[in-house]
Amino acid sequence: MTDDPPNPALLPAGLSDVLPPEAEREAMLVEVLAETFARHGYERVKPPLLEFEDSLLAGSGAAVADQTFRLMDPVSHRMMGLRADTTPQVARIAATRLARVARPLRLSYAGQVLRVHGTQLAPARQLPQAGIELIGADSAEADAEVAAVAAEALAAVGITGASLDITLPRLAPALLDAAGVEGEDRRRLARALDRKDMAAVTARAEAGGGAALLLPALLASAGPVDGALAALAAADLPPAARAIADNAAAIVVALRARAPGLRITLDPVEFRGFRYHTGVAFTIFGEGLTGELARGGRYLSGEEPATGMTLYPDAMLRAVAAAPPRRRVFIPAGADGALAAALRAQGFATVAQLSSGDTPDSLRCTHAMNAAGDAVPV
Amino acid sequence: MTDDPPNPALLPAGLSDVLPPEAEREAMLVEVLAETFARHGYERVKPPLLEFEDSLLAGSGAAVADQTFRLMDPVSHRMMGLRADTTPQVARIAATRLARVARPLRLSYAGQVLRVHGTQLAPARQLPQAGIELIGADSAEADAEVAAVAAEALAAVGITGASLDITLPRLAPALLDAAGVEGEDRRRLARALDRKDMAAVTARAEAGGGAALLLPALLASAGPVDGALAALAAADLPPAARAIADNAAAIVVALRARAPGLRITLDPVEFRGFRYHTGVAFTIFGEGLTGELARGGRYLSGEEPATGMTLYPDAMLRAVAAAPPRRRVFIPAGADGALAAALRAQGFATVAQLSSGDTPDSLRCTHAMNAAGDAVPV
Repeated sequence: MTDDPPNPALLPAGLSDVLPPEAEREAMLVEVLAETFARHGYERVKPPLLEFEDSLLAGSGAAVADQTFRLMDPVSHRMMGLRADTTPQVARIAATRLARVARPLRLSYAGQVLRVHGTQLAPARQLPQAGIELIGADSAEADAEVAAVAAEALAAVGITGASLDITLPRLAPALLDAAGVEGEDRRRLARALDRKDMAAVTARAEAGGGAALLLPALLASAGPVDGALAALAAADLPPAARAIADNAAAIVVALRARAPGLRITLDPVEFRGFRYHTGVAFTIFGEGLTGELARGGRYLSGEEPATGMTLYPDAMLRAVAAAPPRRRVFIPAGADGALAAALRAQGFATVAQLSSGDTPDSLRCTHAMNAAGDAVPV
Repeated sequence: MTDDPPNPALLPAGLSDVLPPEAEREAMLVEVLAETFARHGYERVKPPLLEFEDSLLAGSGAAVADQTFRLMDPVSHRMMGLRADTTPQVARIAATRLARVARPLRLSYAGQVLRVHGTQLAPARQLPQAGIELIGADSAEADAEVAAVAAEALAAVGITGASLDITLPRLAPALLDAAGVEGEDRRRLARALDRKDMAAVTARAEAGGGAALLLPALLASAGPVDGALAALAAADLPPAARAIADNAAAIVVALRARAPGLRITLDPVEFRGFRYHTGVAFTIFGEGLTGELARGGRYLSGEEPATGMTLYPDAMLRAVAAAPPRRRVFIPAGADGALAAALRAQGFATVAQLSSGDTPDSLRCTHAMNAAGDAVPV
């Protein structure tokens, strides 16, 4: 739709209007995602946008506490938060209203989240999210399922060639624990891993000794999953790290069964930005795209083992080719309503002439209905 | 889904979780409404949930100023509001980003609104809304279109027998103006009309004299539209009131053409709660239901004549019979993924066994897939 450039004074930074045709496209994407989730047995919940901050910021919600808008509830005089993430709300629902439903519990959601600050790379402060949570299952098959369902949902909206990146955020800490690297040495080694600075990782790993010596080879193994798993298999891992590696291998086996065509990479010692993950973490990227399409992984939902994925419809909107616009048919004043209804049933938008000033051109119509009820291109 | 009773301490009053299967039903209702709007040429916009309060509370937004949550934007240090109504946001979009698009402009929206306080009758403080705005058309046909499209959308979600109530909120004020009834006398007459207290209306109308004398008969005429229009036609209305009555008659003619089966009532002197309406006002009720399904009418969108309807999916959810639940098929561990995909394509939800503890019963499945890929009832 032809439109004037946005006036930056009109809306707060990071909050924007979605215009035609993008708003309809976004809504349709979300419904395709939701339908895919439902077809895998994930049942939709809709928590409120606002709730008491203590429940909103519990568990995995602590990770977004700084990003949560707060406001006073004049009814209860307690502080409420505007959700910055939906997962903590689903955890609350699972632990309370759905406490007696047998596990595993498969739940899905779709809605908006709001953030106090945008980032330079992601300036938006309101984001649509759609996601799934699988609560009460601790198997590798459960982790594989949420990743496979997310990939299938992306394919359903037309995103092919997506790639799943697996990280093991507890692996590097397990190696540093086994090597007894603590304090400032640990922070420096973590920063070097963060920057993927091989020279610094190597130097600091040698200083740390023991299991820390495994870090350079594991850092170097990041890439296609088979090579990274081979490096993990070949490494002489301490028991805690071995369990993490074996779990990753089992998840990949289950993923290959559930999503044979999915491209998978593994970055064994990456652990940045996964503060609440208790196991594997997932990120899905689109082919040739910079932004993430989905994130997820294993966490604790209250006291229960859980795994889930959050998908980002706004990122998909940029990744999916626009569908052809809806054909608009001009309906002259006084025309037979039944004829216009027949055109709507064929997928046309029928746009009624309301005054003599309305023309097919002014109403941006691609077609006009003739006396026989046919849509004739204009 | 079996669930525990809600704990009132858990969520703020008026904010609630929508659980399975209602959350999916609500989302599906909204998409059916949105599709109906789109088929009539209404193009979807998605304004943000938060924006600066001065734009949010402009125009028709002033009517919900008391109901708008406010919070400080830490980026701009300006006050923002959490939208309590979407119409003012659509008006802002029409006046700015879409200022150059030819009129009339047909826009639609669907999303959540939040309110500071619930009422005894409507305790919810978060409400889903879906609606249409027709901006830049001042004809009776435009008013008829938004009401007819709203009624068609309700029929599309399965609500038949809805009834459209038309009120003329400027008519009683026009009669009181013509009669020169002002001050306390006017307020008392307005309250008597509000309560539909015929004795008080009659006594005060006689005291007011002139055009006020028409009020008792018009109050009595409220009901099926033909009788009320006949009473208006028979009344010796002053010019401003005559124009309002003629416009109502023209809208009804246009409505009969657009929505022949629609039941219509008219309450000519009702004017409560329509503070920003500049012409006709509409309310749609369901057959045998107490709550409203939709409201709307004519208003000013910035400087432009506009008319629109807001539909309430939460009220529809209570009015529409629940669809049969999605059939859930248990997929044994290790089963062929292609067979499960074939069942999904048939509309089944396939629920995968993730561990030996998962049974068709524990996963609440209605069916189980056998080795041939058939869904067998359990």
